[in-house]
Amino acid sequence: MRLGVLTGGGDCPGLNAALRAIVRYGHAERGATVIGFADGWRGVLDNEAKELTIDDVRGILPRGGTFLGTSGVQPHRIEGGVERVRETFGVHRLDGMLVIGGEGTIAEAVWVSVPVIGIPKTIDNDVCGTDASIGFHTAAQIATDLVDRLYSTAESHDRVMVCEVMGRHAGWIGYTAGVAAGADVILLPEHPFDIEAVCRRIRETVVLRRSFAIVVVSEGATPIEASMLVPDYPVDANGFPRLGGIGSIVAEEIGRRTGFETRVTVLGHVQRGGSPVAFDRVLATRLGRDAVDRAFDGGWDVMMGLHAGRIEPVPLAEIQGPRTLPPELWQIPEILC
Amino acid sequence: MRLGVLTGGGDCPGLNAALRAIVRYGHAERGATVIGFADGWRGVLDNEAKELTIDDVRGILPRGGTFLGTSGVQPHRIEGGVERVRETFGVHRLDGMLVIGGEGTIAEAVWVSVPVIGIPKTIDNDVCGTDASIGFHTAAQIATDLVDRLYSTAESHDRVMVCEVMGRHAGWIGYTAGVAAGADVILLPEHPFDIEAVCRRIRETVVLRRSFAIVVVSEGATPIEASMLVPDYPVDANGFPRLGGIGSIVAEEIGRRTGFETRVTVLGHVQRGGSPVAFDRVLATRLGRDAVDRAFDGGWDVMMGLHAGRIEPVPLAEIQGPRTLPPELWQIPEILC
Amino acid sequence: MRLGVLTGGGDCPGLNAALRAIVRYGHAERGATVIGFADGWRGVLDNEAKELTIDDVRGILPRGGTFLGTSGVQPHRIEGGVERVRETFGVHRLDGMLVIGGEGTIAEAVWVSVPVIGIPKTIDNDVCGTDASIGFHTAAQIATDLVDRLYSTAESHDRVMVCEVMGRHAGWIGYTAGVAAGADVILLPEHPFDIEAVCRRIRETVVLRRSFAIVVVSEGATPIEASMLVPDYPVDANGFPRLGGIGSIVAEEIGRRTGFETRVTVLGHVQRGGSPVAFDRVLATRLGRDAVDRAFDGGWDVMMGLHAGRIEPVPLAEIQGPRTLPPELWQIPEILC
Amino acid sequence: MRLGVLTGGGDCPGLNAALRAIVRYGHAERGATVIGFADGWRGVLDNEAKELTIDDVRGILPRGGTFLGTSGVQPHRIEGGVERVRETFGVHRLDGMLVIGGEGTIAEAVWVSVPVIGIPKTIDNDVCGTDASIGFHTAAQIATDLVDRLYSTAESHDRVMVCEVMGRHAGWIGYTAGVAAGADVILLPEHPFDIEAVCRRIRETVVLRRSFAIVVVSEGATPIEASMLVPDYPVDANGFPRLGGIGSIVAEEIGRRTGFETRVTVLGHVQRGGSPVAFDRVLATRLGRDAVDRAFDGGWDVMMGLHAGRIEPVPLAEIQGPRTLPPELWQIPEILC
Repeated sequence: MRLGVLTGGGDCPGLNAALRAIVRYGHAERGATVIGFADGWRGVLDNEAKELTIDDVRGILPRGGTFLGTSGVQPHRIEGGVERVRETFGVHRLDGMLVIGGEGTIAEAVWVSVPVIGIPKTIDNDVCGTDASIGFHTAAQIATDLVDRLYSTAESHDRVMVCEVMGRHAGWIGYTAGVAAGADVILLPEHPFDIEAVCRRIRETVVLRRSFAIVVVSEGATPIEASMLVPDYPVDANGFPRLGGIGSIVAEEIGRRTGFETRVTVLGHVQRGGSPVAFDRVLATRLGRDAVDRAFDGGWDVMMGLHAGRIEPVPLAEIQGPRTLPPELWQIPEILC
Repeated sequence: MRLGVLTGGGDCPGLNAALRAIVRYGHAERGATVIGFADGWRGVLDNEAKELTIDDVRGILPRGGTFLGTSGVQPHRIEGGVERVRETFGVHRLDGMLVIGGEGTIAEAVWVSVPVIGIPKTIDNDVCGTDASIGFHTAAQIATDLVDRLYSTAESHDRVMVCEVMGRHAGWIGYTAGVAAGADVILLPEHPFDIEAVCRRIRETVVLRRSFAIVVVSEGATPIEASMLVPDYPVDANGFPRLGGIGSIVAEEIGRRTGFETRVTVLGHVQRGGSPVAFDRVLATRLGRDAVDRAFDGGWDVMMGLHAGRIEPVPLAEIQGPRTLPPELWQIPEILC
Repeated sequence: MRLGVLTGGGDCPGLNAALRAIVRYGHAERGATVIGFADGWRGVLDNEAKELTIDDVRGILPRGGTFLGTSGVQPHRIEGGVERVRETFGVHRLDGMLVIGGEGTIAEAVWVSVPVIGIPKTIDNDVCGTDASIGFHTAAQIATDLVDRLYSTAESHDRVMVCEVMGRHAGWIGYTAGVAAGADVILLPEHPFDIEAVCRRIRETVVLRRSFAIVVVSEGATPIEASMLVPDYPVDANGFPRLGGIGSIVAEEIGRRTGFETRVTVLGHVQRGGSPVAFDRVLATRLGRDAVDRAFDGGWDVMMGLHAGRIEPVPLAEIQGPRTLPPELWQIPEILC
Repeated sequence: MRLGVLTGGGDCPGLNAALRAIVRYGHAERGATVIGFADGWRGVLDNEAKELTIDDVRGILPRGGTFLGTSGVQPHRIEGGVERVRETFGVHRLDGMLVIGGEGTIAEAVWVSVPVIGIPKTIDNDVCGTDASIGFHTAAQIATDLVDRLYSTAESHDRVMVCEVMGRHAGWIGYTAGVAAGADVILLPEHPFDIEAVCRRIRETVVLRRSFAIVVVSEGATPIEASMLVPDYPVDANGFPRLGGIGSIVAEEIGRRTGFETRVTVLGHVQRGGSPVAFDRVLATRLGRDAVDRAFDGGWDVMMGLHAGRIEPVPLAEIQGPRTLPPELWQIPEILC
């Protein structure tokens, strides 16, 4: 058995744990040859590869990121890319690829027609076909710890503290950190928000309840008032507000409309780095081992997912579109829409 | 609607989060009167009670333990206990009790015949009828962080480090911390272990792989050699080895049989205290809210549980016996049996 | 003995620990009456005051912020402010004030002519007359932990990660987090930096050493090229670059000049909140107790400071101007100037 | 310039940071050849050595322990040991040794007559001639975090929680963790304690103040009643109480004499492992660099120490005897004697 392995898309905590499991179990226990590619599909395209042994994965379990490197390169969008991938695949006489990534990275295997077993990772937790993706629980924990810290200043200065967290298409981090840290308002990509309703809630909170307020905003949250996004905010090349984006806009609007002192914090990249929490280490280890077993059984072209505590395969066709928050999680008043 | 609420059994992180959710949602949003009892069923027995309002639960979300206090008192085992409980129940004109506890604490409601909705908590994660109990993920995270720390000394001194973690009847903490921290050997209550096999594994590890070894032992792990438990170990009133128990025994045997320098650390109570991780805060909040909804719907005599990401009721009859590790988690060589 | 106490200026971890020490030791052990004022000098101005007892300080030792609240109000700059402060002082028949704050907050006591014993706090660590101010070691630890996390992404994506930390006039946080986390470049307020030298260092690092680079920038660092601050950066009312300030500018320039993928993270308010580290808890407790002793000895008009491990009084006249990094800390190449 | 380097005695967080600074600054910047010896003086005895370059120290700054390994071997106590050390010294043509260790490890250089510059490390903080040793602030922080966690259970169950921390001859960790976590009683090696006074304090605390109590005990604390150490406690080969030692004894006595439910936790090795706090990383880096400078200046036979924020040399003759807590730290009622 000859297995390729790569990590693609944004990095996250737990990738190294998955790689370690694949090498320790796949190579050392089951005898497969494991070829690691550098920087996601980029390394397949350029045949930048290395046979991995147990020495390569020693000590990496608690470390964030991926020792193989990662990128968002998609060979099928590159002239001659499919052929180059298939050539690399042939050179190494691979039986198939274990692809650790989000929906796009895994789907790439279909575009380039190589047998694949996908392992879902993304701090946003928005891959369909699994209860959780590698990296999410760590990111949500980091965001929670940091929102916890904002209470000190909110309370000591009677301020409104706005915290922007990751989550472009799905609000899992925002929901988890918001509920876990007891935010007064949570704004998520799933539902456009009404800034006036937000200000109303904050006035009630500050006047009646606790003299300060905490607002958690996913980076993908959008206002129903399009005008909020227009006039004087500096925008980047894609027309997206620069530096901090929606969190900064929300903070400015709250300050302007309520008169309360308001500050914004944009957590940014610290959410995706550092040592994974126990949940992600165990999830990554289990997904890695079971992907190897699945490969030995010849069960290609699935993604391994977590389902009620068990690891099970899902057909690739079922993992389309971002997995957003299910309706039953919406029944809390902190989430305004 | 008049609801009693109590926390029983050993304390754990997330109890305060559940109490907060019940008071904020049940009282402030849905209008119920919520009566909190001190120290579990002890407070019902003695009618030590207090009506809870939002002021009682302010700021407690991130705090460990339970502000109501807790105990293992079981009224039905006390002369006249059932009558005293029922009298308290009548005095407060309760519609039912929300009981946050393990199997025994929840089952007590059946013995004393009061309507109950159970909310599962236990760091051991061994309550049936739910994918996770409040407190477990925090305990597993603490244990993982501390086993991580033992690597420094193991590596610097070429030692075998044995770490005893909690888990009397089920090995969830041991499994999670062991896999997450990359232990070489994991000993769990589910399978009696052979100390000779343990020593064999350690010799291989130390000689062939990394010059040191990490062993995680659940407090409830037992050896197949009964003699190991006998002769010169000091025992407590129950005949259980004193001070550190099985972890110390395992460390001494490994040291004696392999000749390697071996040290034991017994994590003890630090595993059950302090601020809950995000997972437990969200789980506790969801269980608390859904228990209130269930009470308003009159759906008594169930436990609310987590099932594949959803909160659902389980009949009390189904929550018997400790929930041990499922077989598919056993397929790793670190777990010797 | 009747003592007033207030916390002024920006909040920081350890203020509650200092208040607790003053009340527990000053009131409960030595019998003083302790009057706490709300929101720094604002509460003295408005006579918003409360006699503090041991119940007010129970459980606050590990909590960030200040339960008294804080503000930057300076009575001597307000029409009639000095008189109002002196009236409040008389109403409570105070012997003097224990003022927990930075240079300005402590100096205010001189302006309004009340006896004072100052206790230095500021996460920036820039108060003269003490080896360390309350809050600094916590802020430096948080910043270090978060820069640690940025390594994962830097390494996995071969990126330059720029991290802006607090420190307007003194670079203590930037120096500590930069050295502790092993940054390749550290930019501090003490020395204007040459962006070309920065880019040169980064090119060397990325090409010769490790394929990525970490840059730590204090918010008060300034470039020698004034033009860098001018043309297309959005500025706030004070002409200061908006949202992220110098960190964002540095990141954009590095990206533009070197061609390396570069990202910025602005840590912001998370650096000043949450539970204090052990160092700050002990420092705050010692400063609080010794300030009480000093008051009982009648030794007013000093600030208590840490000097080589001992707490000693410093005349107020000696605490002028920000305490910047001493020259011997500059002898490292990471700090470019 | 040819420099030997070793780490001796118990491992602690920050050793790797010091080694990294020595190699990066001494070798890469100043051009010295740096020879690393395995396992402290044992590696010099056996000439187990390796020339260190920047690749050996990459990524080790945040890691606990020492990649060189460590031991307590003292060549001058071994037949022919002095000669073997001097032979190794000659083989490598060393100008001198940089010795990272406690008093004994550094003093060994005098016994074997090689030029030495010492760098103090010990989590106990008991090396004379420096305000702080590498490792202490990390150990004190870990202990504080863990005592914090014990509050949950103490409070929820109305218990007395006893926590044994490291510190054989000096109570720095016990003092710091005890004060920082707000312990009710702190027992240190510096002063034999009266168990009756301890029980009196605990009764007052539990009855009058907060229904539970927290006791921090250094491993080296001793009772004034010798009988307490005698009859039924299992002792080890050195006559020292087995498994948990004094903490367990104190807990049993408190439980027996007061009737309060009492539990003990022995923190053990987790206090000396894992990632160093920022303070230790910076201290280790500064000590390492300044030791190199000192070697280039030919200023052998000193230890580099921290003095009021500066790194300065101390003659070896001045670093004798354990550095215990200074009297001014004793003026708190928690410390019973």
